[in-house]
Amino acid sequence: MKTRMKQTVAALVAAGIGFAAAGAATAAESLQDVMKRRSLSQQDLLAAAKTYVPTGKRDEFVAFSSGGQSGQVIVYGIPSMRILKYIGVFTPEPWQGYGYDENSKAVLNQGMIDGKQITWGDTHHPAISETDGKYDGQFLFINDKANPRLAVIDLRDFETKQIVVNPIFKSEHGGAFVTPNTDYVIEAAQYASPLENKKFYPLEEFNEKYRGGVTYWKFDRKEGRIDPKQSFSLELPPYSQDLSDAGKGPSDGWSFTNSFCSERYVGGIEKGRPPYEAGCSAKDTDYLHVINWKKAAELVAKGMAKKINGHNVLAIETAVKEGVLFLIPEPKSPHGVDVTPDGKFITVAGKLDTHVSVYSFDKIQAAIKAGKFESKDAYGIPVIAMKDALHTQVQLGLGPLHTQYDSKQCLAYTSLYVDSQVVKWNFCEGKVLDKISVHYNIGHLMTMEGDSADPKGRYLVALNKLSIDRFVPVGPLHPQNHQLIDISNDKMQLLYDMPLPLGEPHYVVAIDAAKLKPGVRYKVGTDSRTDKPHPGAVRAGEEVTTKKGNKIEVKGTLIRSHITPETIEAEVGDEVTIHLTNLERAQDETHGFTVSTYNVHASVEPGKTVTVKFKADKEGVYPYYCTEFCSALHLEMQGYLLVKPKGWKATKTAGAEKAIYSEDDYKKQLKKVADTQAVIDQVVGYITSVNYKDFPDVVNMMDDAVDQLNKIKDAKAKHEDAAKKKDWNQATLWAEQVWQYQVKAADLGLRAKTYLEQNGAKKVK
Amino acid sequence: MKTRMKQTVAALVAAGIGFAAAGAATAAESLQDVMKRRSLSQQDLLAAAKTYVPTGKRDEFVAFSSGGQSGQVIVYGIPSMRILKYIGVFTPEPWQGYGYDENSKAVLNQGMIDGKQITWGDTHHPAISETDGKYDGQFLFINDKANPRLAVIDLRDFETKQIVVNPIFKSEHGGAFVTPNTDYVIEAAQYASPLENKKFYPLEEFNEKYRGGVTYWKFDRKEGRIDPKQSFSLELPPYSQDLSDAGKGPSDGWSFTNSFCSERYVGGIEKGRPPYEAGCSAKDTDYLHVINWKKAAELVAKGMAKKINGHNVLAIETAVKEGVLFLIPEPKSPHGVDVTPDGKFITVAGKLDTHVSVYSFDKIQAAIKAGKFESKDAYGIPVIAMKDALHTQVQLGLGPLHTQYDSKQCLAYTSLYVDSQVVKWNFCEGKVLDKISVHYNIGHLMTMEGDSADPKGRYLVALNKLSIDRFVPVGPLHPQNHQLIDISNDKMQLLYDMPLPLGEPHYVVAIDAAKLKPGVRYKVGTDSRTDKPHPGAVRAGEEVTTKKGNKIEVKGTLIRSHITPETIEAEVGDEVTIHLTNLERAQDETHGFTVSTYNVHASVEPGKTVTVKFKADKEGVYPYYCTEFCSALHLEMQGYLLVKPKGWKATKTAGAEKAIYSEDDYKKQLKKVADTQAVIDQVVGYITSVNYKDFPDVVNMMDDAVDQLNKIKDAKAKHEDAAKKKDWNQATLWAEQVWQYQVKAADLGLRAKTYLEQNGAKKVK
Repeated sequence: MKTRMKQTVAALVAAGIGFAAAGAATAAESLQDVMKRRSLSQQDLLAAAKTYVPTGKRDEFVAFSSGGQSGQVIVYGIPSMRILKYIGVFTPEPWQGYGYDENSKAVLNQGMIDGKQITWGDTHHPAISETDGKYDGQFLFINDKANPRLAVIDLRDFETKQIVVNPIFKSEHGGAFVTPNTDYVIEAAQYASPLENKKFYPLEEFNEKYRGGVTYWKFDRKEGRIDPKQSFSLELPPYSQDLSDAGKGPSDGWSFTNSFCSERYVGGIEKGRPPYEAGCSAKDTDYLHVINWKKAAELVAKGMAKKINGHNVLAIETAVKEGVLFLIPEPKSPHGVDVTPDGKFITVAGKLDTHVSVYSFDKIQAAIKAGKFESKDAYGIPVIAMKDALHTQVQLGLGPLHTQYDSKQCLAYTSLYVDSQVVKWNFCEGKVLDKISVHYNIGHLMTMEGDSADPKGRYLVALNKLSIDRFVPVGPLHPQNHQLIDISNDKMQLLYDMPLPLGEPHYVVAIDAAKLKPGVRYKVGTDSRTDKPHPGAVRAGEEVTTKKGNKIEVKGTLIRSHITPETIEAEVGDEVTIHLTNLERAQDETHGFTVSTYNVHASVEPGKTVTVKFKADKEGVYPYYCTEFCSALHLEMQGYLLVKPKGWKATKTAGAEKAIYSEDDYKKQLKKVADTQAVIDQVVGYITSVNYKDFPDVVNMMDDAVDQLNKIKDAKAKHEDAAKKKDWNQATLWAEQVWQYQVKAADLGLRAKTYLEQNGAKKVK
Repeated sequence: MKTRMKQTVAALVAAGIGFAAAGAATAAESLQDVMKRRSLSQQDLLAAAKTYVPTGKRDEFVAFSSGGQSGQVIVYGIPSMRILKYIGVFTPEPWQGYGYDENSKAVLNQGMIDGKQITWGDTHHPAISETDGKYDGQFLFINDKANPRLAVIDLRDFETKQIVVNPIFKSEHGGAFVTPNTDYVIEAAQYASPLENKKFYPLEEFNEKYRGGVTYWKFDRKEGRIDPKQSFSLELPPYSQDLSDAGKGPSDGWSFTNSFCSERYVGGIEKGRPPYEAGCSAKDTDYLHVINWKKAAELVAKGMAKKINGHNVLAIETAVKEGVLFLIPEPKSPHGVDVTPDGKFITVAGKLDTHVSVYSFDKIQAAIKAGKFESKDAYGIPVIAMKDALHTQVQLGLGPLHTQYDSKQCLAYTSLYVDSQVVKWNFCEGKVLDKISVHYNIGHLMTMEGDSADPKGRYLVALNKLSIDRFVPVGPLHPQNHQLIDISNDKMQLLYDMPLPLGEPHYVVAIDAAKLKPGVRYKVGTDSRTDKPHPGAVRAGEEVTTKKGNKIEVKGTLIRSHITPETIEAEVGDEVTIHLTNLERAQDETHGFTVSTYNVHASVEPGKTVTVKFKADKEGVYPYYCTEFCSALHLEMQGYLLVKPKGWKATKTAGAEKAIYSEDDYKKQLKKVADTQAVIDQVVGYITSVNYKDFPDVVNMMDDAVDQLNKIKDAKAKHEDAAKKKDWNQATLWAEQVWQYQVKAADLGLRAKTYLEQNGAKKVK
């Protein structure tokens, strides 16, 4: 028994190479058996075949979904509907270290309002950056309805880089929407309120003192950040502004924002008044706002805006006088205004009307040019008659809500909230083509790049709000249900039901996966939140801990499988700042870091430098460790923060280390190292015998393995040096450290070997 | 155009009933076409058929996964691998209102340490409550390694009910594991530290002053809570305790905890010492702790424990003297100790050894009985010789880590971290049966109920740590990869790759879905975090706002689609407490609630009462609204918090409301209401013409629809009363409100109708 136990890993590596399964072959289930057992129809099997993504293959499209009240963004693949990532945006999220390290806290703190930290968001409408009206896959924008803010996510690393607070609104629903070259990100108010910060007016003065509006955030693509100073807003009447869309092609330079409760009704059910839901939906129409944003930007540049809370706001009066703001009646309580891919038409659906209305940009322009208005609203804004602006209206069904477009000419899809259906229709001819029942109460829907100038067709996702009878029950709070629908044929086909496990998404955008080119590592020493070199970064061997007054600063490193330093000493009350650089180059070789009970956590991807900071306010011993399962010895990637009482003095000096290991132990280590090296050579022999250079992932693994082996040099020098001094403890342990590097290299070699075998590597001569 | 616009919803409902798709039928892709286009093999198609769950059907098993550093628990379905829910546990999560309402904050605050809020956790090992060693689906337990804590989740509503802080540890990895009837939940320490709170000892005194241990938390099943006063710990040497498992059947009353770094090595790479990873893995064996917990509990009951930080701790010395603590050598750096379903054997795998070791409980007992020990450790604990305790050792491969069992006799599965494989083997005969390569670097693995006394076989999930080349890239921080493997045949078959979008799961447990019976609503007025009536609950019509001094208390309600009250008035500096009761009975009819910029959010499921609280510290107008897309008019489910300057007096009194609506408007409303009623009658006619009572979900929908229609009575009385007084504003709006209730009823009727049509309802005579 003992003998077997002592067998080195080397023999097993060798054995593993030739391993073949020993189990007796028995007939597994056939496809027919499986279909029968699982009661699958032919249609089910077709849907399964259309959505299943085998191991190692990739999804075609990547969807970015608002996470609703989770305050995050959800990333999932289409057609598999597998969720790939939750990106921390408005809500702290410890896995990513978001809000638990100093660098990401700096981003979250940009979102403070009235001096208060806001630790969540009600995210609604994501938008991908565009070039010429087409998705370019560089940036993602997402809004917070509850606390009017907007966030910028860089799709190079899927991290939130900036949060801007709307300077004049108290809520905003209608963002984010980008102009065709992402010059501006559009964000409209929702519930009207006084624009002046911290200013109260009674509801009796609602019409006079409360206002809506739309903000045009200037985006600096080179910096990857919004430039608040170059941004401006347009004051609007206290209609509850809803969603927006930017014109494109012929309508570029214009934007469209719809509204509800243009009744300007103020509820008060507690006083016996009918509630908002009755008063805000009593009229047949609300107003579509038509805005010449390019001209508005020029007016602001000319100094024609007034400053409210330090922000440029173009007054209604100025906007009307200068001809940049118009209204058109639209069916009541709409949600979504959607410009057609060619930029010629604008579709609006009113949830309480049965029609979808298609407005013609040409007709709108003709009316404006001719000065043909049916009236002015109470704020003096010219109103274009609906009939003068409409291209067509199509009766779709109950609760039409949101429209997206197909790659095929003139084809549109609209969600029906009350009917729980998706309608496929032709917006040129005003004809309904197909309907499909979806799971209950669809809100938005989404086609691939379907709100861009170049929709990709193929798939549609229905964002259904309820999942009463769909999934295994998980308590009173259900997931929502995103249903995938195949739209490549005349008839729509339901493919997949996807539960949403966290948050209530409002809207989703999906991009061709090939357009995304995120990085796998950072340049060593990068602060990922600023994209700049991190001042706390150090290279291997340069790790240092300094103390100035009561401030301790650690510049440390992380690498499989140790943290440098392994001890941090402090006195009660010291402020401890720890900068950690992940020295790994290998893809996905992330390390985490935390200190027991000090409420910090960092996720340190290869090359990144992150800072955590806390006050060591309680005496005691606090383990710290790597929180990622980064290698076989990840549990040993540990250290201790020692918080001593003030003025503590050692009473026991560290004596000479006891001799635990002998020369024999050292020699055993040397034998193990030699055996393992032979095996590594054998694995390397296999890898270099095939065309491994044709597999970029394998080349990366080999680079990483070489990194590991290179680290041996230093540890080897140390054990040889100690052996010369007959310090068998040090000699044995540094030899063990050599073996640890070998195990990591062997691990990589085996991964590479499996990959090559499974992916049809060929012998090279 | 106008005429068409004015067409009532009624006609469309009628039209919708008979709607049939108008699109021309074209040949859609065949299965063969799809397989060719998507390059699917026959094996891929079989895997797709084995995992695809068609719309409306359910998964067979439900997995509860630790969320790793996300601090949450992940719930997913098997075999579809769709994530159903993230449960907020240690980290605030706004979608669930967790940490954003007062009731859940009370749970999170139980987890404070040293007076500090800890807003995250490093969750590791979930455990489902057991009865007779079998999963009973009632409760879930999960630990926090970083800040040693344990949480209790009630599976009736999937909510976290309790967090307990370990009173003596500074980190804990080895929890949660339950005893066979969930009398105790086992939680072992990880990195040794002084047991006394806030006590520093230098690392030079590691052997003398640092300690490990294992805590037995007493669980009160009736209360659904841990009872800290009845709980106790066992002091253990400063070996890094790792995972545990409770004995069952013949080994019931005993528990097993393994360890690493029994070298008691203290690193210090910054001082030139070999790192922990070398020093902690230098010896061939660590120690398996064998503990008679039933006897230990008796000793504690007899008063033989000492109090440390007010908690009962059984000293090593006492444990040794009373014969409740033993050690056995185990292969070095193990992770996981797993008792076989019959309770006869205990499996341990050492990550740096190539074998799995199967210990015999009988042999262990025989050695103890005979007093046959090979030695004592440095703390006087008797050590049973490995050879005296072993049933067998099996050479499996590189990096054996964790073992789970099959429903079939003697079958076990072990993960190989370095080889990235799963091994199927026979623990009775000590024979390897099959191996399958998984995606890189598997940590734990999990079979269905595979750590219970009654494993279900069928599926295995490999918890792989890296996803280098698997999914569409999402930046340097990758998801992890849970791979589903079919184990129902002799040969294992890989079925599915599942990315984990948030957190790094460590361990998962899965239960037969039929064993879970969560509720869909609360008894009206329940505080879900205490399971008791909420003192702030009110019924419809009893809503009230009171002010005492600077404290405002609102007892309000939520129902589709209004919040009562719709106005809350405060003065700057007031403390505002809002209790909200969701009056809905309908499944999944959740309302959310937030107040702009005050950083509160509540998720209010049907029947629940939740409290939010904040200081209205800034003058201004703050919209509040329902954050769930709860109905077609959810955007109108709004109100205003008005924060006035201190001493503000109205200068303008609310004048008489202007006459906006006329008698004609009122009459139009009445017509619309009558038309809609006719349609509702028609839908109801269809539903009652079929066997709808055979469909419980439909019966619920009908109940809900009747609820909606019942609300009409009050609104109808109001509009008729107003009409008598010729108050056409009030009359028109209350009539509109009647129609709003009708629309909600029609919505439900249409859902029910679709459901019946799709689920083969039959005509009743």
